[in-house]
Amino acid sequence: MPVQSQVDAVLAQVDAGLEQSLERLYELLRIKSISTDPAYAAECQRAADWLVSELAGLGFDAAARPTPGHPVVVGHGTDQAGPHVLFYAHYDVQPVDPVELWHSDPFEPQLKEGADGRKIIVARGASDDKGQMMTFIEACRAWKTATGTLPVKVSLMLEGEEESGGKNLPPFMEAHRDELAAADIALVCDTDMWNRQTPSITTMLRGLVADEIEITCANKDLHSGMFGNAARNPNQVLAEIIASLRAPDGSVTLPSFYDDVAEISPELKAQWASLGFDEAKFLGEVGLSVPAGEQNRSVLEMLWARPTCEINGMIGGYTGDGFKTVIPAKASAKISFRLVSGMDPAKIRAAFRKHVEERLPADCSVKFTPHGGSPAITVPSDGTHLCQALAGLSAEWNKDAVITGSGGSIPVAGDFKKILGLDTLLIGFAHVDDQIHSPNEKYDLESYHRGIRSWVRVLAALAG
Amino acid sequence: MPVQSQVDAVLAQVDAGLEQSLERLYELLRIKSISTDPAYAAECQRAADWLVSELAGLGFDAAARPTPGHPVVVGHGTDQAGPHVLFYAHYDVQPVDPVELWHSDPFEPQLKEGADGRKIIVARGASDDKGQMMTFIEACRAWKTATGTLPVKVSLMLEGEEESGGKNLPPFMEAHRDELAAADIALVCDTDMWNRQTPSITTMLRGLVADEIEITCANKDLHSGMFGNAARNPNQVLAEIIASLRAPDGSVTLPSFYDDVAEISPELKAQWASLGFDEAKFLGEVGLSVPAGEQNRSVLEMLWARPTCEINGMIGGYTGDGFKTVIPAKASAKISFRLVSGMDPAKIRAAFRKHVEERLPADCSVKFTPHGGSPAITVPSDGTHLCQALAGLSAEWNKDAVITGSGGSIPVAGDFKKILGLDTLLIGFAHVDDQIHSPNEKYDLESYHRGIRSWVRVLAALAG
Repeated sequence: MPVQSQVDAVLAQVDAGLEQSLERLYELLRIKSISTDPAYAAECQRAADWLVSELAGLGFDAAARPTPGHPVVVGHGTDQAGPHVLFYAHYDVQPVDPVELWHSDPFEPQLKEGADGRKIIVARGASDDKGQMMTFIEACRAWKTATGTLPVKVSLMLEGEEESGGKNLPPFMEAHRDELAAADIALVCDTDMWNRQTPSITTMLRGLVADEIEITCANKDLHSGMFGNAARNPNQVLAEIIASLRAPDGSVTLPSFYDDVAEISPELKAQWASLGFDEAKFLGEVGLSVPAGEQNRSVLEMLWARPTCEINGMIGGYTGDGFKTVIPAKASAKISFRLVSGMDPAKIRAAFRKHVEERLPADCSVKFTPHGGSPAITVPSDGTHLCQALAGLSAEWNKDAVITGSGGSIPVAGDFKKILGLDTLLIGFAHVDDQIHSPNEKYDLESYHRGIRSWVRVLAALAG
Repeated sequence: MPVQSQVDAVLAQVDAGLEQSLERLYELLRIKSISTDPAYAAECQRAADWLVSELAGLGFDAAARPTPGHPVVVGHGTDQAGPHVLFYAHYDVQPVDPVELWHSDPFEPQLKEGADGRKIIVARGASDDKGQMMTFIEACRAWKTATGTLPVKVSLMLEGEEESGGKNLPPFMEAHRDELAAADIALVCDTDMWNRQTPSITTMLRGLVADEIEITCANKDLHSGMFGNAARNPNQVLAEIIASLRAPDGSVTLPSFYDDVAEISPELKAQWASLGFDEAKFLGEVGLSVPAGEQNRSVLEMLWARPTCEINGMIGGYTGDGFKTVIPAKASAKISFRLVSGMDPAKIRAAFRKHVEERLPADCSVKFTPHGGSPAITVPSDGTHLCQALAGLSAEWNKDAVITGSGGSIPVAGDFKKILGLDTLLIGFAHVDDQIHSPNEKYDLESYHRGIRSWVRVLAALAG
């Protein structure tokens, strides 16, 4: 039977099975797979095993493959024909702190009513990325249940370290290059829709360089009465270094930082302008009103086409209740750079470290700890697979799918290109208010339901 | 019997009872009286009760008097004549973090051998201030045991909130002014000897203004991919504010900060120069070599006669293991100023807050939390009590006692003057390597033993 004629039956199966699809998602959300914290290593393994069991139940040849970190789940369909897609998502999640700001247990998923009456699934990972991942797996399930097969050849690679640097995935892909490069196109589900009505495929992603610096001055903590004024204070040193990273006009001060950054084309600028992005609403929803980046740039440019430097964490000295008049021995910060197309992560990391070392006063030393790096990527905007996927999405949402950029980094898309030679279609159903990485993360029930339906259609479209 | 002729017998009693004196100190050191952390409130009460019991056993009319915070222990001798001293020390201690750097349990005191073979008592509070406090109490015990009485009239006021702002003590002193102001002179045991051979009395103490600032930008934590560049990052804002507090020449940048700071007299400068202070050794012992404060000032000037601004703690964003690409909603810092004679704490606090508010970018707010403030104090260097006490110390150490300054703040000395009209003699036996406020705090056994003996002699000297 031609694939397109089966789509309605598969969609009906998705609708009929939604309740059970949700229950399966909840099972996965209850697993505390926080990859960055070694205390949760067993939970990451449990999430991987759960996925293997699900995939095996759908007829995939699946296994949790060991890495020096958390396992990578790989599954291959055994009975399909047609084009071959390699689907990627990640089963690990961010830490939940500050946990006291959650309105319910982050690992006990709840179906709640959002502020505007929409149904939302609340849990850590509901959106990023377990909910998104399950839209694809449940679409495969619907195809198998309704038709006994899949419309294209499907492989999956599900990572457990996306939120913690993902340093073990590239060597894993290198080691299994022949097995994984057999696909024709990679699919990644870790991005947003343009808005509630408009599906999108992301073709520009920023890269990332993450570094940790630890400044040491004295060889022990000192009393600020006994030593204050004479002893170098690493909190002050660190603050001065951080302050030196941004100019008053909002630009990043590293020498050569913008050398490889190209201005976007007038065509792209026009297309982005036509999206009707509401800067005031975007900032207003998080309590802000003035863009903090380079002056005379639109917010979309700042987010999609301009690099940034962000201080993701910093700590030094006494930070508990009350006060302690200490001059600490050490202070440290977690600092990341978001990169755009053309920027070399290694070059930026080196420029950053040189900048820090040049500003280190006498008696101070610095220790650097890298936390991953990946270049920005750009997906060609005129390929067959892209056009097919856009058509599938447009059919489901009754609205033309748009092509967008993203300020986030999805390093695996760069690795798909570099290691496997595959282009990536970034298709996702998240929304900007999903509070990913924050307390009370949620995924719209509509994102989940119509995300599954979208993949049913996209897989059919890719079958040609 | 004349007081001076009894001294040898009392000193012999100190020597004979040293083992038991140590056991009593250990009992007190085992009590976890961390005043700044509400979790240890019951331990603070326990320390106060323990002291009341000790004092009552020595014939003092003693009680743990309630305050809105931890109790103040007050004891009055009931049978003495002669001059009346009011002894002050504090029974609370600093937190113990980072606890992993302690070589033994901070609350299980141990008699160890120091690097150069000296015997040291290791525990939180061993030096600051339980060890110092007990030198006086044990001296009183020796007088009572050997002679049945004390050579002067003795009252004690032992505080439980010195390490946490001490905000309840001034109102307590106000409320009991008549009772406490009956003394002729205050004695405080919370300072250092000049060096291992040379006892000293401190006549200049810096004041303190402690403030906490919390900067808020967005109304929740944000993903740095989704918002980085467009959203204001409070870590960056806080770092820029902290950096703005110090000029490249090491001076503090608050407008008018130095307006009320007088240069020290040529005489004092000469006296300090004659102390033979070894700057390189002082800094070298804590792993430093270059003074961080104002250029062209000696280290002693920086510490004793110049104000400073220190960042005692700062925190914002994700600071756990691994990496989290978050833009936090808030960042905060604990900041203190050490003041010298002439500076008004209220004026400095106001100037600091204005400086912060003026540097706050759009969309940011700041919350200030005060953590205590007190002016610097200067004790007249020619009074009778001072000369008597210097003589007593010189006799015990066979070396002329010196007059010094201190970079630390002992707010109670200012309050003794302001509220009770009393001058204070600051006499202590601690050493600069005692690691107070740091891991592995210690008190030399010699400090304890000869500190007790010193008080025996000072009390006799004050009897006239």
